[in-house]
Amino acid sequence: MNIYGDSKSGNCYKLQLACANLGIEYTWIELNILNKETQSEEFLSKNPNGKIPIIELSSAEVLTESNAILNYLADNSTLLPTDPLNRAKVLQWQFFEQYSHEPYVAVARFIEKYLGLPEERLLEYKQKQVGGYKALDIMEQHLSTNLFFVNDTYSIADISLYAYTHVANEGGFDLSSYPNIKHWLTRIGQQPGYRPMHN
Amino acid sequence: MNIYGDSKSGNCYKLQLACANLGIEYTWIELNILNKETQSEEFLSKNPNGKIPIIELSSAEVLTESNAILNYLADNSTLLPTDPLNRAKVLQWQFFEQYSHEPYVAVARFIEKYLGLPEERLLEYKQKQVGGYKALDIMEQHLSTNLFFVNDTYSIADISLYAYTHVANEGGFDLSSYPNIKHWLTRIGQQPGYRPMHN
Ligand SMILES: N[C@@H](CCC(=O)N[C@@H](CS)C(=O)NCC(=O)O)C(=O)O
Ligand SMILES: N[C@@H](CCC(=O)N[C@@H](CS)C(=O)NCC(=O)O)C(=O)O
Repeated sequence: MNIYGDSKSGNCYKLQLACANLGIEYTWIELNILNKETQSEEFLSKNPNGKIPIIELSSAEVLTESNAILNYLADNSTLLPTDPLNRAKVLQWQFFEQYSHEPYVAVARFIEKYLGLPEERLLEYKQKQVGGYKALDIMEQHLSTNLFFVNDTYSIADISLYAYTHVANEGGFDLSSYPNIKHWLTRIGQQPGYRPMHN
Repeated sequence: MNIYGDSKSGNCYKLQLACANLGIEYTWIELNILNKETQSEEFLSKNPNGKIPIIELSSAEVLTESNAILNYLADNSTLLPTDPLNRAKVLQWQFFEQYSHEPYVAVARFIEKYLGLPEERLLEYKQKQVGGYKALDIMEQHLSTNLFFVNDTYSIADISLYAYTHVANEGGFDLSSYPNIKHWLTRIGQQPGYRPMHN
């Protein structure tokens, strides 16, 4: 299996973290988003949406969207519950991540860490703080009575939310008043096969 | 099962369309988003994110996120393939919908149809056109060689993408140069249990 990713990207890190836990081997193909390497004709023939991560199977089939890929990789493993309701709850948190968390926390981080907070994106950056803190509040509340997001067991829902939450400080988010999130981040760092993000 | 929804919302319509196809009965509880009925203390105790649709099971368990709910409802039905790769492809298109389609097409529709295109959101509206057409281009390309999004069979991936695509004109999108999308919309209208959106 080939993974096309940028090692500074949290969406790509999700796959590295899952593969390390599951003992899945892969070939990593590094693309630099800042150099627009996802917009080449060759890459667009694999993913017309021009986004990473993607995986390419030995059959040459391509799968896109980080959270869809996680579900594929984690099928029949401890990272994905088998009963329908808990499986749907994993998806619930993953869709929450893509709709209500990543567009704020990851984009604020991108504007600050990679673009260096340019004047013309300051207003957008400030709006991203509002949405990001709202997502963090919801996580904090859930984690006040749960060890992990679904079924008190480490799953791909945790991996999806961990990817950008653990580097939220790089987008200007202060986690000091989020003790439950901080304990959960620590617990994830102790899971089998944990590996840091190289960024 | 209770569904809390706003009948003008495409995200909520997804559930009505799936239930009609699958013969699932439910009680519909209408909430008006414009009147901020999703921000009441009572509703926030069910979904702290303050968004609809949600479902409430007879066990009182709540599930949020339209696409997660669709996966739960369609489990073991013709609307969801059973093999892991096709299941992941359904998720791929659903995450595409939530990340690269809905935030543009649905938000443009909201600004135009519900807010009446106010001056202060005109710039945002124009930016939404760019992202929306990009998503439509990707769909058009896929449908040039496929009858449906996954496995040439009607699935919840089609339902997720249909919800806002079939009312994209209400957000200022002109589908006249998207013949494959138009044929796909027609095919969906012919599926068993099809019902229109009341809006
Ligand atoms: N919904 C996608 C988002 C992926 C995404 O936005 N990837 C970024 C890097 S983190 C990217 O490829 N950006 C390049 C571009 O959009 O041109 C997923 O979860 O995989
Ligand atoms: N990702 C969510 C999005 C749901 C969503 O944005 N719902 C809108 C209505 S279409 C809503 O409840 N808005 C009220 C609010 O955000 O306050 C899903 O797919 O269910």
